[in-house]
Amino acid sequence: MAVKYVYFFGDGNAEGKGDMKNLLGGKGANLAEMTAIGLPVPPGFTITTEVCTEFYKNDRQYPASLKEEVAEHLRRIETLMGKRLGDAKKPLLVSVRSGARASMPGMMDTVLNLGLNDQTVQGVIELSGDERFAYDSYRRFIQMYSNVVLGMDGDILEHILEQAKEKRGVHQDTDLTAADLKEMVGLFKNKVKETLGREFPGDPQEQLWGAIGAVFGSWMNPRANTYRKLNNIPSEWGTAVNIQSMVFGNMGDDCATGVAFTRNPSTGEHLFFGEFLVNAQGEDVVAGTRTPQPINKAGGDGSLPSMEEVMPECYGQLMKAQQILEKHYRDMQDIEFTIEKGKLFMLQTRNGKRTANAAVKIAVDMVKEGLISERDAILRVAPEQLDQLLHPSLDPSAPKTVIAKGLPASPGAASGEVVFSADEAEAAARLGLKVILVRVETSPEDIHGMHAAQGILTARGGMTSHAAVVARGMGKCCVAGCGDIKVDYRTQQFVARDGSVIAKGDVITLDGSTGEVMKGQIPTVQAQLTGEFGELMSWVDKVRRLRVRANADTPHDAAVARKFGAEGIGLCRTEHMFFEADRIMAVREMILSEDMEGRKRALSKILPMQKGDFLGLFREMKGLPVTIRLLDPPLHEFLPQNDKDIDELASVMKVTAQDLRHKVESLHEFNPMLGHRGCRLGITFPEIYDMQVQAIMEAACQLIKDDGFEIVPEIMIPLVSEVRELAILRANAVRVADEVIARSGVKVSYLIGTMIELPRAALTADAIAVEAEFFSFGTNDLTQTTYGLSRDDAGKFLPLYVEREIFPTDPFVALDQSGVGQLVEIGCVKGRQTRPNIKLGICGEHGGEPSSVIFCHKIGLDYVSCSPFRVPIARLAAAHAVLLEK
Amino acid sequence: MAVKYVYFFGDGNAEGKGDMKNLLGGKGANLAEMTAIGLPVPPGFTITTEVCTEFYKNDRQYPASLKEEVAEHLRRIETLMGKRLGDAKKPLLVSVRSGARASMPGMMDTVLNLGLNDQTVQGVIELSGDERFAYDSYRRFIQMYSNVVLGMDGDILEHILEQAKEKRGVHQDTDLTAADLKEMVGLFKNKVKETLGREFPGDPQEQLWGAIGAVFGSWMNPRANTYRKLNNIPSEWGTAVNIQSMVFGNMGDDCATGVAFTRNPSTGEHLFFGEFLVNAQGEDVVAGTRTPQPINKAGGDGSLPSMEEVMPECYGQLMKAQQILEKHYRDMQDIEFTIEKGKLFMLQTRNGKRTANAAVKIAVDMVKEGLISERDAILRVAPEQLDQLLHPSLDPSAPKTVIAKGLPASPGAASGEVVFSADEAEAAARLGLKVILVRVETSPEDIHGMHAAQGILTARGGMTSHAAVVARGMGKCCVAGCGDIKVDYRTQQFVARDGSVIAKGDVITLDGSTGEVMKGQIPTVQAQLTGEFGELMSWVDKVRRLRVRANADTPHDAAVARKFGAEGIGLCRTEHMFFEADRIMAVREMILSEDMEGRKRALSKILPMQKGDFLGLFREMKGLPVTIRLLDPPLHEFLPQNDKDIDELASVMKVTAQDLRHKVESLHEFNPMLGHRGCRLGITFPEIYDMQVQAIMEAACQLIKDDGFEIVPEIMIPLVSEVRELAILRANAVRVADEVIARSGVKVSYLIGTMIELPRAALTADAIAVEAEFFSFGTNDLTQTTYGLSRDDAGKFLPLYVEREIFPTDPFVALDQSGVGQLVEIGCVKGRQTRPNIKLGICGEHGGEPSSVIFCHKIGLDYVSCSPFRVPIARLAAAHAVLLEK
Repeated sequence: MAVKYVYFFGDGNAEGKGDMKNLLGGKGANLAEMTAIGLPVPPGFTITTEVCTEFYKNDRQYPASLKEEVAEHLRRIETLMGKRLGDAKKPLLVSVRSGARASMPGMMDTVLNLGLNDQTVQGVIELSGDERFAYDSYRRFIQMYSNVVLGMDGDILEHILEQAKEKRGVHQDTDLTAADLKEMVGLFKNKVKETLGREFPGDPQEQLWGAIGAVFGSWMNPRANTYRKLNNIPSEWGTAVNIQSMVFGNMGDDCATGVAFTRNPSTGEHLFFGEFLVNAQGEDVVAGTRTPQPINKAGGDGSLPSMEEVMPECYGQLMKAQQILEKHYRDMQDIEFTIEKGKLFMLQTRNGKRTANAAVKIAVDMVKEGLISERDAILRVAPEQLDQLLHPSLDPSAPKTVIAKGLPASPGAASGEVVFSADEAEAAARLGLKVILVRVETSPEDIHGMHAAQGILTARGGMTSHAAVVARGMGKCCVAGCGDIKVDYRTQQFVARDGSVIAKGDVITLDGSTGEVMKGQIPTVQAQLTGEFGELMSWVDKVRRLRVRANADTPHDAAVARKFGAEGIGLCRTEHMFFEADRIMAVREMILSEDMEGRKRALSKILPMQKGDFLGLFREMKGLPVTIRLLDPPLHEFLPQNDKDIDELASVMKVTAQDLRHKVESLHEFNPMLGHRGCRLGITFPEIYDMQVQAIMEAACQLIKDDGFEIVPEIMIPLVSEVRELAILRANAVRVADEVIARSGVKVSYLIGTMIELPRAALTADAIAVEAEFFSFGTNDLTQTTYGLSRDDAGKFLPLYVEREIFPTDPFVALDQSGVGQLVEIGCVKGRQTRPNIKLGICGEHGGEPSSVIFCHKIGLDYVSCSPFRVPIARLAAAHAVLLEK
Repeated sequence: MAVKYVYFFGDGNAEGKGDMKNLLGGKGANLAEMTAIGLPVPPGFTITTEVCTEFYKNDRQYPASLKEEVAEHLRRIETLMGKRLGDAKKPLLVSVRSGARASMPGMMDTVLNLGLNDQTVQGVIELSGDERFAYDSYRRFIQMYSNVVLGMDGDILEHILEQAKEKRGVHQDTDLTAADLKEMVGLFKNKVKETLGREFPGDPQEQLWGAIGAVFGSWMNPRANTYRKLNNIPSEWGTAVNIQSMVFGNMGDDCATGVAFTRNPSTGEHLFFGEFLVNAQGEDVVAGTRTPQPINKAGGDGSLPSMEEVMPECYGQLMKAQQILEKHYRDMQDIEFTIEKGKLFMLQTRNGKRTANAAVKIAVDMVKEGLISERDAILRVAPEQLDQLLHPSLDPSAPKTVIAKGLPASPGAASGEVVFSADEAEAAARLGLKVILVRVETSPEDIHGMHAAQGILTARGGMTSHAAVVARGMGKCCVAGCGDIKVDYRTQQFVARDGSVIAKGDVITLDGSTGEVMKGQIPTVQAQLTGEFGELMSWVDKVRRLRVRANADTPHDAAVARKFGAEGIGLCRTEHMFFEADRIMAVREMILSEDMEGRKRALSKILPMQKGDFLGLFREMKGLPVTIRLLDPPLHEFLPQNDKDIDELASVMKVTAQDLRHKVESLHEFNPMLGHRGCRLGITFPEIYDMQVQAIMEAACQLIKDDGFEIVPEIMIPLVSEVRELAILRANAVRVADEVIARSGVKVSYLIGTMIELPRAALTADAIAVEAEFFSFGTNDLTQTTYGLSRDDAGKFLPLYVEREIFPTDPFVALDQSGVGQLVEIGCVKGRQTRPNIKLGICGEHGGEPSSVIFCHKIGLDYVSCSPFRVPIARLAAAHAVLLEK
């Protein structure tokens, strides 16, 4: 049997079905489905996507049987409608539209009113009794066709239209009379001939095949190619072409056209919601030249009459249709309709886009209404969307003056007085002031100021700059890389793009979700974690298998993490504790000591403070696992850089400032990322890790002994590249831990594991697993080393790489599954070969990014760990992973 | 049947054989073998290494059957010798020695003269008729046994001996009389009792088992453990114990002892060569208290009579024995012998250590003598040894004053006047002066000075510092990281460890093979590449399959490489050309231009010079493949850092110095190794690569057209992490290349390939091979990223890592096969999956390191590429790889 290339729909019958999107495209499948479930759809047919594929495969030739199939289906429409394409008395007009598998809004071409020529226009006048309508349709057709099919610049005819309006002294197209429009048709046709050197085609068959060719041709236009690349749509999918009998919303006041959502797409409220225009075609609604009216009283503000009021009969038809559609599709629908002479026609339905809030509410409501299951509800909310919900956001109704725009580095909104240094931020916060920390860029020394500030604004650095990463970790609003501002520390002010000068103490507002910087204070609305959100997340937690922990360094972060549903701490970075004001001096003294005695003296000052840190963390996470990473960054990160700090430290250490400066310089590294850090510090200065292990174990023992806690501390050794490093450091840690346990007199278990954050660690994970009870994949550093790409330096080329799609996404944002992910998988497989019950997790930015979380689930990790504010996102993505694996 | 733990040898019969080294240890197997081939060996037996393994497995218990087996074999010796252990009349004395599979010289314990006590000493007196000899043996035994077996500090008895000599007013042990020695025995025994609280054991059986236990115990002593680790000897191998009847070289003037080599171990000359002492025991030869005599006239200087002269009969026996041995073992032997009462006894034979020169000569001579095959000859020379041959070396006979010692960073020897800057070096060289460039450390800006100098001395940096790597590449002598000197640029002098002050213009000599720095000029001897060396290498080239190319950036380097047998250039680093004095200004102008126009203007100045570079290279390598890597380092490496250079450049570029300084600063990177370099430059500044491709292709076309050359340039894109980078850059290169070819009007082929130097490139090599016609594994950078280890910064911990054996070797020296090598292998397999005929090579330091070369052969690379001076080493290693795979 020959392949069937054309599928008919009309009058309650359809050859296609809603689930045939691959073959018929989204629009074609929906039109067939709507027809089949009895909704009023103008009859038509769909040329399948296979024809598109064949078309490109065979050097833009159609399959041989297509012509005949189209003709046959066209006859079916003509019979149903009692009209004929090109008939001078009863002319059929059709629309020709593209329709791909996945929605590609506005990317491909459409031709309406096809079939008009100087003869058929007379038939339309007769049938409609409306000469103006007929010529308006005709001139629209010529405009559209000459642009879309003949490839003429759209402005050429538009210009004639503008001239005509000027000549008549009118502003709106609707003010042109039938005679004006008739004249226009003549002018248009002449202009087409003049421009293209040939007549505008009058033969409707020629028009039809021209339009079909244009739609298939538009599949490969540059706009569509780009869109497909951006949205990962393979070019092999092809588009379908839908040819459908025209219906007219612009044939008088008993005609109308409109768009509607079956529920409110902003709030999710279960209320039919939409707009319409009387006596108009679809494009008029979109163009915005006339103000649309609400479809019902509930959706309007009373200033314009609603469809419910002016066309109650039609509104009734529409209300019924939308109910059928939502029930049928079991999701909120975005619909297009036209009313021709009092009769409703449905032109389009699809799942409606919605805000995060609406997505959550609609999903939960539909479960309660019995429309969908809990599992369906989970899949209805995109994990990334949740980010909007978890941070305060600007009150959308408040006016705002945007003075600059940077990168939306960490979501949320915040207002405060501008300060230019971390110390000032901290001092101001101590006085109870709300501040925004403004820096050219931030460094680890600014952490305390970032903590103290409401939000952070930097002039330099990308989405993965220090400021961005740390702010996201803190769940704090951040606008980074804002080239629109020039910061001058000397004068303590910055100048914005628009010339505004913002001095220290002036109030600004940041929107970390858009990157906007605004003058003054703009009211914000808080995140809401209860209600429907809470309900949805409880279903999520029932479904997912992957555990979700948080990266948290302080009891405060830990508390936030628990609030967001974290099931433990996957990464506590002890170095953040070293920067605290009360101990940085002792830390520096430790680093700059010439001998072990000096280091031990300094470490003994730090020990009780570290123990205090861990007591706080364990208390906050009572009963949940806590992974503590021993010191990781190169020591020079802690050192003073300016003269004042060096002098101060020198006097504490009783050495000369010059000697100290020399020592600081000698610690300089060319590539600190690849330098003397991580476990390499533990090997060369074992006393540092000894102190940290002692602090961890003393804290654990104390809480177990005095408060009856159940704690199994997880001690994590960073940057291991070779199992012998871990063997040595494990032996040291066991010695120290067992001494503490023996002194305490209680029974305490603990685990020792490692970060897998270097390619060699992943590649030799079988050997490393001999010494490690758990692996935590540190995919930030693993991405840096696997790509040979420094996060701090990538700003000069990474944006271009992402823009040009050399990298499909920023690999620091979404885990690179083919390279870095391959190493993670190798690490898992080899690790389990040696130690089948090894605990496997991931920490690092990727732990809260949905596609990465799904990958982690697939390869069988036990948990992901991410910033506290991304924990709900990770939980939802983990549930998606389960539901998608079916 | 019970396991046999003891193997007998004696009187022409042996239970063991020479190839049973695993079971009997090297010494035991050799004693058995010598016995079996009819050489006079004192009878004895060997306790197998399995006993050692059992001993440690069973908590230091011997296998049950051992006692009986030892007793039985002891009886065999006693029968053969007509003596009995412990017999007062005819006492047997034995030696007890360790003997592991691999030679571990001096690492384990030995006891001689065992069996002596107050009764048996009388028997010895009677048998030998020499009371002095008997008591001398007795006191030696007590000394050795109390130290080795009883664990007493050796100095305690030594002190008594010294006191006695003082009392007698004599200097030498030999001046002590029999009575003195007898008294000494008493004193020794008392002292042992006093120190250890128990009697010195008189029972020979107790003595014997004590000694056996001590030898097994010594296998695990700290010295032996360290030696094994350093030499990669597994502790499971265990040692054997050899118990052998004593023979005495110290029983009168018809007795002697000596060591000899069957050929000269320094020169390889085919001449029996050795030393002996009349009336002495083996340890006397080693101790050096008496000057040994030559064994033959040819080996002496005539000042002392030779054995050939004083003991012609014994010399004859020895001569015959050594001939038998060399013929039997088919290698130069290092032998130990003793003559007792005119009768020769062979105590030891093993393959002799030799210099590189000797190794080559002996191997080639033996082929000519029909002793070994060419293949055997190849395996007789260790590839690494060749390094000694390929550079000038210090005349060993010249006196020298070492004033400091650093790392032997690049072999060879050189003398010259000290200069402290690259510019001075260049200026002096232009005047025909020979200079040594002395710097705290070097940077890419010093390359021209390093080229101009005879040798390089740096105060800082390790074996893989810039100076070391570049010097090795140039085959230039370098002593690096010489902490013994303090360099003062201001006063233009350095102070050495010994206080010497060396000023600019003073002459020093460097030995890059030892790291020594000497005052004044020391004569050197040149490398010899012809003669036996050339002959051996011709055999090597017949055997090996792996091709060997060189890393060379200049026609000079290329010429050297060809001289050493390179079969092409595997890596030409174009950036080295950018540093040339005549173009660095244009390069800087290019980098600092604000727009593409400015860059293109500067590039057009560089183009003809680059073309000239490639013309030179292609001419030198006529007919051989040349791989040219496009620009790789981050651009800031080329920028001026000091004010003078910045001012000069600013005036050329007509910008202010301040603007220029700002621009220079803006190019700073935190981790340049992971920064904006390699193909990332090609993506962001395509005009740079376009210029380079144009220069390469214009040079090739010109030589093909005008001179009839056959050239297929290999254009290599560095630092690819993702195939799309390569796809873009390949397309650019093809466009430029094809334009040049079209203009030239000749037919030219070219290849485009990539470095695989990032883990992600290796992991996604299947995708990358779609765009690459060849891969060159850049294992220097691949090692850095796989380990997360910066070569420039590793100095603070890598030496400790190697010393503590955390890394078995420095991974920048020998390829880390389990991690980095795993990636190379993955890259090969995946690359060939996509493109079965893809050309695979390795460039980087590892390409000239023998174990790495063998690895490259194993995984099936097509070629290795290394510094010109290492090409012969790589060739030899490649031949070894073939011979070892059997």
